[in-house]
Amino acid sequence: MIEVGQTYDFFGKVNLIDDSTYESYPVNVTTENNETVIVRVKQSKKVELNKIYFFNTKAIEFKDKIHLEASNFTPIEDTDIEDENREKLMKFFYEYAPINIVDIKKDIEVAIGQIKNKVIKDISDKIYQRFQKDFYLYPAASKFHHAYISGLAYHTHSMLRLSEGFMAVYPFLNRDLMVSGIILHDICKIFEFTSYENSEYTIKGKLIGHISMGVNLIHEVAKDLGYEESEEVMLLEHILISHHYYGNFGSPKKPNIAEALMIHFIDNIDSKACVLGEELDLVNKGELTKSMPVLDRERYYKHHLTNE
Amino acid sequence: MIEVGQTYDFFGKVNLIDDSTYESYPVNVTTENNETVIVRVKQSKKVELNKIYFFNTKAIEFKDKIHLEASNFTPIEDTDIEDENREKLMKFFYEYAPINIVDIKKDIEVAIGQIKNKVIKDISDKIYQRFQKDFYLYPAASKFHHAYISGLAYHTHSMLRLSEGFMAVYPFLNRDLMVSGIILHDICKIFEFTSYENSEYTIKGKLIGHISMGVNLIHEVAKDLGYEESEEVMLLEHILISHHYYGNFGSPKKPNIAEALMIHFIDNIDSKACVLGEELDLVNKGELTKSMPVLDRERYYKHHLTNE
Amino acid sequence: MIEVGQTYDFFGKVNLIDDSTYESYPVNVTTENNETVIVRVKQSKKVELNKIYFFNTKAIEFKDKIHLEASNFTPIEDTDIEDENREKLMKFFYEYAPINIVDIKKDIEVAIGQIKNKVIKDISDKIYQRFQKDFYLYPAASKFHHAYISGLAYHTHSMLRLSEGFMAVYPFLNRDLMVSGIILHDICKIFEFTSYENSEYTIKGKLIGHISMGVNLIHEVAKDLGYEESEEVMLLEHILISHHYYGNFGSPKKPNIAEALMIHFIDNIDSKACVLGEELDLVNKGELTKSMPVLDRERYYKHHLTNE
Amino acid sequence: MIEVGQTYDFFGKVNLIDDSTYESYPVNVTTENNETVIVRVKQSKKVELNKIYFFNTKAIEFKDKIHLEASNFTPIEDTDIEDENREKLMKFFYEYAPINIVDIKKDIEVAIGQIKNKVIKDISDKIYQRFQKDFYLYPAASKFHHAYISGLAYHTHSMLRLSEGFMAVYPFLNRDLMVSGIILHDICKIFEFTSYENSEYTIKGKLIGHISMGVNLIHEVAKDLGYEESEEVMLLEHILISHHYYGNFGSPKKPNIAEALMIHFIDNIDSKACVLGEELDLVNKGELTKSMPVLDRERYYKHHLTNE
Amino acid sequence: MIEVGQTYDFFGKVNLIDDSTYESYPVNVTTENNETVIVRVKQSKKVELNKIYFFNTKAIEFKDKIHLEASNFTPIEDTDIEDENREKLMKFFYEYAPINIVDIKKDIEVAIGQIKNKVIKDISDKIYQRFQKDFYLYPAASKFHHAYISGLAYHTHSMLRLSEGFMAVYPFLNRDLMVSGIILHDICKIFEFTSYENSEYTIKGKLIGHISMGVNLIHEVAKDLGYEESEEVMLLEHILISHHYYGNFGSPKKPNIAEALMIHFIDNIDSKACVLGEELDLVNKGELTKSMPVLDRERYYKHHLTNE
Amino acid sequence: MIEVGQTYDFFGKVNLIDDSTYESYPVNVTTENNETVIVRVKQSKKVELNKIYFFNTKAIEFKDKIHLEASNFTPIEDTDIEDENREKLMKFFYEYAPINIVDIKKDIEVAIGQIKNKVIKDISDKIYQRFQKDFYLYPAASKFHHAYISGLAYHTHSMLRLSEGFMAVYPFLNRDLMVSGIILHDICKIFEFTSYENSEYTIKGKLIGHISMGVNLIHEVAKDLGYEESEEVMLLEHILISHHYYGNFGSPKKPNIAEALMIHFIDNIDSKACVLGEELDLVNKGELTKSMPVLDRERYYKHHLTNE
Repeated sequence: MIEVGQTYDFFGKVNLIDDSTYESYPVNVTTENNETVIVRVKQSKKVELNKIYFFNTKAIEFKDKIHLEASNFTPIEDTDIEDENREKLMKFFYEYAPINIVDIKKDIEVAIGQIKNKVIKDISDKIYQRFQKDFYLYPAASKFHHAYISGLAYHTHSMLRLSEGFMAVYPFLNRDLMVSGIILHDICKIFEFTSYENSEYTIKGKLIGHISMGVNLIHEVAKDLGYEESEEVMLLEHILISHHYYGNFGSPKKPNIAEALMIHFIDNIDSKACVLGEELDLVNKGELTKSMPVLDRERYYKHHLTNE
Repeated sequence: MIEVGQTYDFFGKVNLIDDSTYESYPVNVTTENNETVIVRVKQSKKVELNKIYFFNTKAIEFKDKIHLEASNFTPIEDTDIEDENREKLMKFFYEYAPINIVDIKKDIEVAIGQIKNKVIKDISDKIYQRFQKDFYLYPAASKFHHAYISGLAYHTHSMLRLSEGFMAVYPFLNRDLMVSGIILHDICKIFEFTSYENSEYTIKGKLIGHISMGVNLIHEVAKDLGYEESEEVMLLEHILISHHYYGNFGSPKKPNIAEALMIHFIDNIDSKACVLGEELDLVNKGELTKSMPVLDRERYYKHHLTNE
Repeated sequence: MIEVGQTYDFFGKVNLIDDSTYESYPVNVTTENNETVIVRVKQSKKVELNKIYFFNTKAIEFKDKIHLEASNFTPIEDTDIEDENREKLMKFFYEYAPINIVDIKKDIEVAIGQIKNKVIKDISDKIYQRFQKDFYLYPAASKFHHAYISGLAYHTHSMLRLSEGFMAVYPFLNRDLMVSGIILHDICKIFEFTSYENSEYTIKGKLIGHISMGVNLIHEVAKDLGYEESEEVMLLEHILISHHYYGNFGSPKKPNIAEALMIHFIDNIDSKACVLGEELDLVNKGELTKSMPVLDRERYYKHHLTNE
Repeated sequence: MIEVGQTYDFFGKVNLIDDSTYESYPVNVTTENNETVIVRVKQSKKVELNKIYFFNTKAIEFKDKIHLEASNFTPIEDTDIEDENREKLMKFFYEYAPINIVDIKKDIEVAIGQIKNKVIKDISDKIYQRFQKDFYLYPAASKFHHAYISGLAYHTHSMLRLSEGFMAVYPFLNRDLMVSGIILHDICKIFEFTSYENSEYTIKGKLIGHISMGVNLIHEVAKDLGYEESEEVMLLEHILISHHYYGNFGSPKKPNIAEALMIHFIDNIDSKACVLGEELDLVNKGELTKSMPVLDRERYYKHHLTNE
Repeated sequence: MIEVGQTYDFFGKVNLIDDSTYESYPVNVTTENNETVIVRVKQSKKVELNKIYFFNTKAIEFKDKIHLEASNFTPIEDTDIEDENREKLMKFFYEYAPINIVDIKKDIEVAIGQIKNKVIKDISDKIYQRFQKDFYLYPAASKFHHAYISGLAYHTHSMLRLSEGFMAVYPFLNRDLMVSGIILHDICKIFEFTSYENSEYTIKGKLIGHISMGVNLIHEVAKDLGYEESEEVMLLEHILISHHYYGNFGSPKKPNIAEALMIHFIDNIDSKACVLGEELDLVNKGELTKSMPVLDRERYYKHHLTNE
Repeated sequence: MIEVGQTYDFFGKVNLIDDSTYESYPVNVTTENNETVIVRVKQSKKVELNKIYFFNTKAIEFKDKIHLEASNFTPIEDTDIEDENREKLMKFFYEYAPINIVDIKKDIEVAIGQIKNKVIKDISDKIYQRFQKDFYLYPAASKFHHAYISGLAYHTHSMLRLSEGFMAVYPFLNRDLMVSGIILHDICKIFEFTSYENSEYTIKGKLIGHISMGVNLIHEVAKDLGYEESEEVMLLEHILISHHYYGNFGSPKKPNIAEALMIHFIDNIDSKACVLGEELDLVNKGELTKSMPVLDRERYYKHHLTNE
């Protein structure tokens, strides 16, 4: 029960923005309590569709209806809410990776912390620090796989886990290159999409792409740190360049170091296994999934065996 | 020093077989002590080129030279020598997988032992029991990868190890199908080659191939055990049929269950990583390997980083 | 005119099955006289959609309407109706190959009878005897070509006819392999579809496929007859394996004997010529057919020339 | 025994032509009796390497040796020798199709004679009459298949035989188009090679090719006969244009009439079956042929079964 | 204001043709003044949909309405209207190339006039004279590029302009072959479409195609002029044959002379650049065009830079 | 005639370097007068094979022979010789582009000078200034096309010339992007090869490639100049990224702006036309060139027509 004159502060997601000739315009908002309210925003201020804000409002009467007049609103990324709560809100409002970001973040930071090679460590650290907020928000793709909030971090984390087995069986793989390569390989996806909630391609994403943007980023950071001529920089750039393997998937070079090859394999497997697992969850035993584009449009059979 | 009249019993590999009009013919043999001797074999008995035998001989004088007259000879597979010693001899005489067969055998048998599903367990057991001797002798391919004695077991073992990580990250994978599928996927390679020492293709290998022979084998064993109509049999057959993924690599069906897809990935990765590791071992840091057919004829760079 | 109390026995095809809370449920049936009647079937018994049954019924009054109460019903395959009559009924109720099954059957049995090689003859006979009923009912494909009742037998028969010319021109072809290979090449299509009336793929059809099932079948029959090690069995299996030629059409091996190559050609030609003939029949001279998927989506021109 | 002053008239093939400063130059010739003689030819006249001539000669003494001075010599195509004898000589001197040209010619002329459609008959007749001498001499290809004297006629004849079965099974095929299309499809191969004995490509063969030359030829003859606008001409041209089916095999259009499709199949089959039969003849039962380029570089197995 | 009894003469395009049982039938016509009128045409005469005619009419009253009775009508191609006016009318009634035909015609005739080689000049002249009316009317394709009235001439003209630069940079190109090859390369497109206003494929277009028809045309004209055996004819035919480069785009031969290669490049570039320019015109700076089939379905970005 | 005690200063190219235990080692040098001399170099100094130096020497007697003892030597790039003379020397010692570098340089600098857009001008200028020495020395490829000294500048210059015609016919092309894109598109080839005289690939060339290095270079220079966020930088980077068009030729993105597409066409044409022109020069009229890898291994015919 909203009462006129009372203040109401809450997180809410913008569903619809209407025009108005009044000095404020009405915005349809879903609140964190799953209620739908009309918030009035001053003409001089802009909210964006599909985004979550923390709204400070006061209930007013407006043409026989009760509206909430916003005195202030802040995008969720700019509030100082705790990670755990933010994740809870994100999961409520958006399609979200089926993971616990707090745990994943811990794992990823441990992995970076264990890099021994100074060049690789410094570059990885600097890039991670600069972009970590977006890194935990963006999807890994606009469709096909991990196409939801935090998909990028989820995908990166699965790849790190999978890489453990590879490093155990193939001792010729360098651990630092594997870890850093996995963390950086898709990081410029955050520039490929217009925003994390709305994964449309930017012009720069279309014309340059995350692979070349990633190489530019490593080149620039290496230059700042004075590592421009080191072999490590060349190797990291090579891993980024070659991780799609095939030219017609966007890699201008095929892998030519063992780590690049293995990161390609792991990336490819996780992008497919993730989708496969999700689709198998949607059908009953004895049935076929729907046709999956990332798996050559094949339908997979869910058999009756279990691990119990 | 060989003395006429003395008996000499030893393992040796046949290098050359000469014709003779005498009642015995001379055979050039390398002994387990790395000596080259001439063994005379009765016309009525046949030795085969390239094979290892246990020879019982007596030194005789023959046309002014000392030859060893064979009273008996037994192929090494038919002697009751211990596994460890046999392996030592094999490694001495042949190009051999860089592994310890005793350890690998233990691991593989543990894996079979842990299969819980009765149908899968019975079929896997029966096939393994029937062919285990050859399973530990044959190569995995005539060239390209694991193309040496025991290559098949070495490859199978690496795949089992690698599959552990996959099962940890992707809980929808059924452990029994994974283990049995890996062990059986290439087992009919033992019929594709004329012998383990001499990996030429048989006519049956060329006309039918290990994939269809493998399906026939599972079908036959399942029928004997009364499991013909079970889903498990269909799934195992499907794993064999689809493990090369692409039709032009010999798979009449693409994978349509999760385990088949993952076994394909693991098989593909190990066949490439094994070659890559071996070729990197042959070059110095800062150099390129030679062009590798299994890796799209690419040459790989051996960088200067290490895990120390 | 149906009269209450009279009995009516007839063949009919099930069009629609309704639920009911009574002890019998109503089934919409088209009779062999092309009338639509309501048959009531006891809850304890199941009829299947789309199938033809011989119904023994008595007319009753049910809620002011006249229904036919079924005392008994038998699937047409299990009645002892003569071939000729069954064919007439099938052609009435279903889309059906444009052939006379009685004649075709005679030709096919003559061909099997003329096989001289004992191994090939025994295997062909045994498989034919076991599956002949379905062999004359199933389609050859679920779409694309010969996709109607008896399509498999029609296709097989055309291939046998076409093969005569090949054997005349190319004397190196073995007649027994050609005949047996043609008859067996697609026989496991009867397991690829859920039923002859309803050509949906079974899970086994999707995961294993008629090629590998066919090889398993020959392997199993050869084993039963003690022919397992004969060259003939290997050759027949090879013909099945390779008859699609290309891996991406499901053949794990390319043809490597002359007969396999020729059966591939004949199979391919008949699957296309049959569709082409049917589509040309549907258009006027001077027109183009519709685009045909089996013919690279091309449209063919029907010219004005005739053989008169 | 050649005697000076005697005349010697004989067929012979030129093996070697030497320079000379005398008024005649020496030519090394193999005679129809398989002797090697030196024929002296006047400087003003030219013989060509590899060709057969009828030589009129007289034995002379030349620098202590006996040479045969040619008073006259005539290319075998210009002598009025009977077909049968010419064929015997050709077979003696060249690699030659394994056929009897007299019989084949009879068959081909019967086929042309049975064409009923006047347009097709007139065009076929006129082209056949104009080029029949070369038609029976040229090979069908410079390598790959039918690459020997009379290969073109041999190939055409086999295609006509094979087409009989097709026309029996598929009644929608027009017999006149089939016969004429087969006879004309490769006829301009006679312009693709520099001569029948020496199958090198002409510049025109390389730049225009037998397909476009064939279309030009039909166009030109049709124009001469006043048939330019008839459907028959368009259909014959279309058959020529499309008989290789695929653009990358030289066909600018895919078949779009039934007869064109079937002629493509028959052409393709005969070009492969002919090579396959010849290679199988060269190996023993139980062996593999050598790898054959026209058969995707596959080796074929010669099994032990026969038609006896 | 149309008055009964008055005569009205005008150009008009036929939009709709109705049946009638009267002795004349009503035709819906758009006039050159953009009015819609009903013209009545005698049953014995036929107008064609979509075509432009010059109508001589008299206004009559017909069942209470005013219709225009046609005493005569002439297709625009058969009137002796001046080029400039005809073009104005065509542009009014049809989608039309964005060019001035008068200028283009002048340029093309100058180019033909400058050909020095007599064989090439005579052939080009004769073909141009014979078909020039249609040459300036037909489109260059039925869709994809230059798919509007006069598209063929527009495309040819752009190619001539572009070729200038090529000839300047690569002096090994023969100017006469370039000019004639460009003018003739697509000329038989006029036979590929049923009419210039209505670019549907003719049967001959589908079965033979403009490439083979073009070769036939050159062959025929060369024969008439006695140039049949000249190298020039072979070269021109080769340019036509090879100008699509790839077999699967309709060229039975790849280019094998420099001019053929360059004409292929120029043809390919202009067919793409024309579409690209037209699509860029349709969007604003900062936007993407729609996906273009001739450009691998890519969307292009219109940037903000200009040449001012 | 070399006299002991005299000094000799000259340019020479190192052909062979021998070991020696003396304090100087002997080097086989070809001088600018085409004489072969032995120059002795101090052990502490290194000359490189295949390079040109300016040698300051004095003739000495060494073990009964006359050697030239080097007091000093300078690589030709570090001498202050005039462009024209350096070019003359280069052409004498190396395989060299068939051009006049002085003229080409003038043209290229004029083109850069005419760039109007400040961002594009500043970036182009800065890169050109930094690398111009190497730009005029390196080849454009290690084989295939322009594979000789100055090949890169030659290729760039031809592309600029060819682009003029494109800009005239297609007014939607931006002149500044065209010029700058052409000059920069291959500039990082100077890092792909170990040296200009010896076009072997560097590891960085193999692992990163000139395309990604080029993008990095533009990114870095743009950053230094403060242009990082401008559209122009994105467009230039896109041109570099996409100029090979196809992924399997090294382009991670297809062209998506008109200028990128046209630069791709021009690059492709010049790389082929250059080779074609060179090969046509090597054969007589009426002959075929050798098979050319850049032209799909085709052989081209040199016809008899000329432009005179």
